[in-house]
Amino acid sequence: PLSPAPEAPMVKVRLGENNYGKADVRLFKVFRDQPRHEIKDVQVRVAVQGDFGAAHTQGDNEGLVATDTMRNTVYALARDGLTSSVEAFGKHLIAHLVSTGPRVTGARVSFVEHTWDRMLSRGERHDHAFVRQMPKHTATVSGDGQTFTVESGLDELYILKTTQSGWAGFHRDQFTTLPDTTDRILATTVTARWTYRTPDADYDAVWAEVYQTLLDVFPDHYSHSMQHTLYRLGEAVLTRCDAIDRIFFSFPNRHHIHYPLERYGLENPGVIFHADAEPYGVIEGWVERA
Amino acid sequence: PLSPAPEAPMVKVRLGENNYGKADVRLFKVFRDQPRHEIKDVQVRVAVQGDFGAAHTQGDNEGLVATDTMRNTVYALARDGLTSSVEAFGKHLIAHLVSTGPRVTGARVSFVEHTWDRMLSRGERHDHAFVRQMPKHTATVSGDGQTFTVESGLDELYILKTTQSGWAGFHRDQFTTLPDTTDRILATTVTARWTYRTPDADYDAVWAEVYQTLLDVFPDHYSHSMQHTLYRLGEAVLTRCDAIDRIFFSFPNRHHIHYPLERYGLENPGVIFHADAEPYGVIEGWVERA
Amino acid sequence: PLSPAPEAPMVKVRLGENNYGKADVRLFKVFRDQPRHEIKDVQVRVAVQGDFGAAHTQGDNEGLVATDTMRNTVYALARDGLTSSVEAFGKHLIAHLVSTGPRVTGARVSFVEHTWDRMLSRGERHDHAFVRQMPKHTATVSGDGQTFTVESGLDELYILKTTQSGWAGFHRDQFTTLPDTTDRILATTVTARWTYRTPDADYDAVWAEVYQTLLDVFPDHYSHSMQHTLYRLGEAVLTRCDAIDRIFFSFPNRHHIHYPLERYGLENPGVIFHADAEPYGVIEGWVERA
Amino acid sequence: PLSPAPEAPMVKVRLGENNYGKADVRLFKVFRDQPRHEIKDVQVRVAVQGDFGAAHTQGDNEGLVATDTMRNTVYALARDGLTSSVEAFGKHLIAHLVSTGPRVTGARVSFVEHTWDRMLSRGERHDHAFVRQMPKHTATVSGDGQTFTVESGLDELYILKTTQSGWAGFHRDQFTTLPDTTDRILATTVTARWTYRTPDADYDAVWAEVYQTLLDVFPDHYSHSMQHTLYRLGEAVLTRCDAIDRIFFSFPNRHHIHYPLERYGLENPGVIFHADAEPYGVIEGWVERA
Repeated sequence: PLSPAPEAPMVKVRLGENNYGKADVRLFKVFRDQPRHEIKDVQVRVAVQGDFGAAHTQGDNEGLVATDTMRNTVYALARDGLTSSVEAFGKHLIAHLVSTGPRVTGARVSFVEHTWDRMLSRGERHDHAFVRQMPKHTATVSGDGQTFTVESGLDELYILKTTQSGWAGFHRDQFTTLPDTTDRILATTVTARWTYRTPDADYDAVWAEVYQTLLDVFPDHYSHSMQHTLYRLGEAVLTRCDAIDRIFFSFPNRHHIHYPLERYGLENPGVIFHADAEPYGVIEGWVERA
Repeated sequence: PLSPAPEAPMVKVRLGENNYGKADVRLFKVFRDQPRHEIKDVQVRVAVQGDFGAAHTQGDNEGLVATDTMRNTVYALARDGLTSSVEAFGKHLIAHLVSTGPRVTGARVSFVEHTWDRMLSRGERHDHAFVRQMPKHTATVSGDGQTFTVESGLDELYILKTTQSGWAGFHRDQFTTLPDTTDRILATTVTARWTYRTPDADYDAVWAEVYQTLLDVFPDHYSHSMQHTLYRLGEAVLTRCDAIDRIFFSFPNRHHIHYPLERYGLENPGVIFHADAEPYGVIEGWVERA
Repeated sequence: PLSPAPEAPMVKVRLGENNYGKADVRLFKVFRDQPRHEIKDVQVRVAVQGDFGAAHTQGDNEGLVATDTMRNTVYALARDGLTSSVEAFGKHLIAHLVSTGPRVTGARVSFVEHTWDRMLSRGERHDHAFVRQMPKHTATVSGDGQTFTVESGLDELYILKTTQSGWAGFHRDQFTTLPDTTDRILATTVTARWTYRTPDADYDAVWAEVYQTLLDVFPDHYSHSMQHTLYRLGEAVLTRCDAIDRIFFSFPNRHHIHYPLERYGLENPGVIFHADAEPYGVIEGWVERA
Repeated sequence: PLSPAPEAPMVKVRLGENNYGKADVRLFKVFRDQPRHEIKDVQVRVAVQGDFGAAHTQGDNEGLVATDTMRNTVYALARDGLTSSVEAFGKHLIAHLVSTGPRVTGARVSFVEHTWDRMLSRGERHDHAFVRQMPKHTATVSGDGQTFTVESGLDELYILKTTQSGWAGFHRDQFTTLPDTTDRILATTVTARWTYRTPDADYDAVWAEVYQTLLDVFPDHYSHSMQHTLYRLGEAVLTRCDAIDRIFFSFPNRHHIHYPLERYGLENPGVIFHADAEPYGVIEGWVERA
């Protein structure tokens, strides 16, 4: 059934690592059995691995699950299967995909869960009205249907402190123009990811604990560098969260640059800054149990 | 000094309405005279009008203020001139631009102010650490340096309620397929803009009052339509905020579409939804004092 | 059926200017009656005006066309009604909306049409394969169903020239630090909009003529400023395109900033630049027939 | 100099894999020694690895290169070192970073190079005016300063064909609702990445060859699936490009969904589609030499 090759002969090739699935499935669930509704607002990406060689080499789709079916599956399984965390739902989804897909041997499901606060309306937290917050709860679950690897994360938490941060004593070479500073603004959008010591955990509780630890520790010390603060945050998270094995942070350093008002005869003692969009520093690292 | 025209002859033309300026000036100010720091985080756009004909027709830049100078001016004036609201600062900036620009007769300054909460750290609101919030305080000030027009606004407030909303009794024609519903999710990202009854106001206090009124009123009624809720919100704002003359809302209707699980023999009584990104309804209108 | 008011009494208000409709309707049409297919790829926004007071004030939806119906209408009418330009289709759509909507007195339809080139495949322009291009054909048509106002436009055409541009002789004040230059990079993303002298035109042909004129004239002169080039472009368009009445340009000045390599003892004669994302100048103006 | 720990005692932790650097460095270079200018427009991300433990654990920055210095270094080295491809420049940059950074043992440099066509102005390709194109040339180079790993890529090439594509014969289960089709629109935004068989190559020539191969082969066959087309494209690239070892594609399947006009008594034989933004299928895989 294949069309003729564009030019003969082709070199010998083979299919390497591959996967397919559905991305940006926008799932929204309302828990309405109580007057105080709960919601889950999640973007899901599903990808399956398996024996898909014939589809690639022969154009033979026998046994392939359509990505449209995967989309339907996410919604259908969420009805009874999404009852607590997205991580737990991910395992459920993978088990189903592996058991029902004739050629599927493994799957990976990624989530971006949007966080919402109950609306503070007339002085009370409302039963069924909500306000979207910036931070996301991310998660990636993968597995063969029997065992699973879970990585959870936190994204788009934008934090800053206006003092108690410096950058000094660093290496200077021919291209170094930045002066030392012992008082600067430290601003970042936190991206964190962590793995677990146990096959199961109360994932939503862990996320909340990581989130609060970041807020507790980010401003509690003089920061010698992003690296310094990264390590301290990691240390605090591993101390507080028994369930976490290791944690990774990626910190864009959102530079707030002192604006040189001195050129106009004006003092600027840490008052007026240019919030630079780019370029930005990026500091990344894992903190692990010793 | 002009190059020869590409082809002769050109038709007779003239310069119409025009302006120029600087956009996305990222201004960040720290108020650090007290241990409890305050911050202002603002994107500024400046545009001037005036007698710029020779620059257009002759390539003669005499008397033109460079947009780079406008950028510098924003930072320099912010040092002493940005003490309360962006609206007040906008007037100050315009007065300066008109008085110092040889050919400038008027200006318009637009602001997008990012909102930050004090970080809740170890149970207390922190003195110098902050967490970025989603909603923006927008403002556009224009004028000739003597009198000003101020329009304030609120943007990116994403709210939803999971019940107490319907859409029924509407017109049906040959292309109508949507059924009536008396229980749906109502979700929108609020964009609001308002004008004032007086030349001056406590602009930040008004913004906070509008914000809280939206949260108080959005969930307090059964919504027959976005239009219905828009009007009720406008009525409430005008009742509470004496300083406001009229208010405009633009509501994208972020559709949460009931997922047809019935196809698989599953009930779905308002539980599983597809949060559709596009297309989306848009409902816009002004509410005015009668 | 309305819920009680949140607090009594409300002030007297009335509904001002208002409209509603559907945005981001993603319409794609294939003309396949010939082996050489043609395509139209358009994002449509529809908004209607009319007598919608009862919906706002009473929650009474009688006679209101659902935005979902508007979406269906766009697709259904496109089948036979989208045969040439989006501007012509816009008129057709408005006439339908006004004639079938019981309360509709006028409408506005906006289009963002994506441009595609035929794929250059094995040396020939392909019959049914296409490659997306950056520039957009925009259009806004409004009217009461009998008479129409048409504004066409061009967007996201990103152009630059590496020389033959300067910025010198401008006004200097206390905040001016920018030096004069007679050789800089001029880069902008063109946004243009224009109106017509006649109620009908060959809209696609005019768009193509404007597009080519921009490419012909942008590099054909020494540019003393964005304003200077703006005027020259407008003059050329009005000369070439008889159908156009007046044209507006909005030019972000995408600054390419000379990088100060001299600090490291390196010459940099117009070779190494920082392509700054923000802030950016914005130059806007209309050029009209005299 | 460290502040006291927030709570005693902390668990024992250690620093894991880590790196830091500068992202979104916007480098623009003009080659102006000939009247026919050439340009390079690149976003650069630099990251270094090495012995950064003391910075993390002690807040001791001795020997650390500032990311600001890295930024300066990119611009300074580009002056003489960016003469052909970004890949070659990446090696040069890494060698410098490793040799000058006291604690740096390796580095990774990533590029997004924007492509520009010479402006077609008055019938000729212009000497110094350019028009931005959509596709990007991406590259990631990593190494220890002696040996390097190079991965090149192509991004944001948005292509479609209006026929000669189907999706049929796939697996059906309880959640499958999609019908078979033997005539659909196939649309995707190509992301490709490839590795090399040799330590050096004419990287820009290879990129151009991959690009043209995609255009030659994408429409030359009846596509049974994205997977089928992916494999065929990989086979063709490996046949034509001797220098490439293996190639990876990630294909978002940008669904164009048949709009059900039959509901209104209208035929729709592959004419009117909804171009859906989300969700979208994603098909990914490597094709390797056998």
